[in-house]
Amino acid sequence: MSVPVAGPVLVAGSGLLGTSVGLALRRAGVEVQLDDVDASVLAAAVARGAGLPRKESSPDPTLVVIAVPPGAAGQAMADACRFANATVTDVTSVKALPMEQARAAGADPQRLVGGHPLAGRELSGPGAARLDLFDDRVWVICPGDGADPARVDAVVDLVVTCGGVPLRMSPLEHDRAVALTSHAPQVMASLLAARLLDADPEAVAVSGQALKDMTRIAQSDPILWQAILRANAGSVAEVLTALADDLSEVIEDLRAGEAAGATAGALTRGVAGRQRVPGKHGSAADAYDVVAVVVADRPGQLASLFVAAGDLDVNLEDVRIDHVLGKPSGLIELSVRPDVSARLCDGLRQRGFDVRN
Amino acid sequence: MSVPVAGPVLVAGSGLLGTSVGLALRRAGVEVQLDDVDASVLAAAVARGAGLPRKESSPDPTLVVIAVPPGAAGQAMADACRFANATVTDVTSVKALPMEQARAAGADPQRLVGGHPLAGRELSGPGAARLDLFDDRVWVICPGDGADPARVDAVVDLVVTCGGVPLRMSPLEHDRAVALTSHAPQVMASLLAARLLDADPEAVAVSGQALKDMTRIAQSDPILWQAILRANAGSVAEVLTALADDLSEVIEDLRAGEAAGATAGALTRGVAGRQRVPGKHGSAADAYDVVAVVVADRPGQLASLFVAAGDLDVNLEDVRIDHVLGKPSGLIELSVRPDVSARLCDGLRQRGFDVRN
Repeated sequence: MSVPVAGPVLVAGSGLLGTSVGLALRRAGVEVQLDDVDASVLAAAVARGAGLPRKESSPDPTLVVIAVPPGAAGQAMADACRFANATVTDVTSVKALPMEQARAAGADPQRLVGGHPLAGRELSGPGAARLDLFDDRVWVICPGDGADPARVDAVVDLVVTCGGVPLRMSPLEHDRAVALTSHAPQVMASLLAARLLDADPEAVAVSGQALKDMTRIAQSDPILWQAILRANAGSVAEVLTALADDLSEVIEDLRAGEAAGATAGALTRGVAGRQRVPGKHGSAADAYDVVAVVVADRPGQLASLFVAAGDLDVNLEDVRIDHVLGKPSGLIELSVRPDVSARLCDGLRQRGFDVRN
Repeated sequence: MSVPVAGPVLVAGSGLLGTSVGLALRRAGVEVQLDDVDASVLAAAVARGAGLPRKESSPDPTLVVIAVPPGAAGQAMADACRFANATVTDVTSVKALPMEQARAAGADPQRLVGGHPLAGRELSGPGAARLDLFDDRVWVICPGDGADPARVDAVVDLVVTCGGVPLRMSPLEHDRAVALTSHAPQVMASLLAARLLDADPEAVAVSGQALKDMTRIAQSDPILWQAILRANAGSVAEVLTALADDLSEVIEDLRAGEAAGATAGALTRGVAGRQRVPGKHGSAADAYDVVAVVVADRPGQLASLFVAAGDLDVNLEDVRIDHVLGKPSGLIELSVRPDVSARLCDGLRQRGFDVRN
């Protein structure tokens, strides 16, 4: 059974994640000490109520949360071991390399328990921090080799106190997992989008929602992603090599003409693999019915549609808006549980909506 | 200047696309003859009002629209040339191979003008047809070698009469375009999703919206996609080979350790390439601000949010719902024009919404 983490907790780094950790701990009444190399960032985090600046005279922390950029995390974890009794964790999105760097820089392996909350935002800095950023989000906990079980429990307490859902993995398991589910997809999205650069305008005009979906994350910050991919280069290369092998089999199969071998296999296995992507509330992907409705592209039009769905007591699991070329209207796709889709279609039609099912 | 297409038009194949073509032409008052190998499908299309069954005694059509499965389209186009004066077009999503098959089967090259309306649905059959399925959608027109310009004009008239936006390309240009924007992305989505099959459950749990986006189309029908990829195997293999080359450069770069070469290049080029993906109303991708709001996962909650946006006179350009693990609440991301995002945030907060920006 998890209990509120025992403070004081030092949060080193007062950006989005560090300040959010501070806010979440303060919400639970835990004493928080804050630090940042940038005095104005630190002041902003303090002003948000995330904690008080750590001073020489402050009591030693029982737990240190390193929330600095990935490249600096290893050294910061080692430095944090100057507090003789403190458990040391971090919030870096890659685990093996920073923890290895921490050990190489003299960190105490018994006190080192890495962490990675799966809660990002497009925004950054203490101003974007939220006290509920981690609520109900998976927060991976990666004990290093030789970590003291009591220290692991302390980090579990931290995660639960911050509202997160602890998920324990080894650093390498974590890095392989994010290579598969996040880092390799990022590379593929970027490569697909990069291929559009040399295409004729007419060719790019012949595209739809699929291309939008497949290139959305190609908009991500290249500097940040270069750092992430560098820090997890080994595991990402491993996943990409497996993908490259699969891809070359498909190419060979297509050149042979029938698409019945590796191509058909990839399509079939893809359907099965997609079933494993977590859906709503972390459950396996649900199969929803899609109800398509055309509405005018004006303020209030979506609202009237959603009010109607609410009146019909239908919960919308997902919504997608597909704007159509050159006209002030949009195709709205509402995902709903299969047992309510007929009721939604009928009810919307009765209310005059242009349902396309 | 385009005019309503001169009938009678024979639509051969009364599935979703054929019946929708019939409905769209009937809307414009054009005489439509229908045909299908399956008498019950034909009867359903007639019952929908898409036209009347073609009989031996019917007048010869001036235009034939082939709307049969890809594998049968070539022969059907050749067969349609039995009507001595008819222009022959189709709605197949691949162009070069069916048109080549049509010529090989004796079709008159002067009368052959391929077509591909970019308007699909998850559903199929005449029951799912809509008279406005093609409204404002790109409809690619591919004149074959030696096509009579007057025949091309007739197909432009057909497209405009059906509500579509004609876009002229050669069959090969078309096939290369869809290989790039649709078929290669489909293969990559399937390969990424297939890689999840062998992953540990914990590894798959460490995933977010990016993986969902990147594998959504992996849910597509494998049988249909095998047929599409087979029909466009050459162009798809070409795009995939270029991707494979790019991918192997990234793998090599990652193995070298710095991610500063091909990896950084792919990320940067990906951002630029993504800018070319058509956005709302076929314009270049717009840059929207994202406003994040947490709402309870119950009927009516989304509605109240959208009513508030409407009250604030803010048009929502896109909506995404990110359900969070284990809790009955969802994170709603509203995309809006940057000049109205501050007004939306303030207004929603004043109305008690949990805005996360």
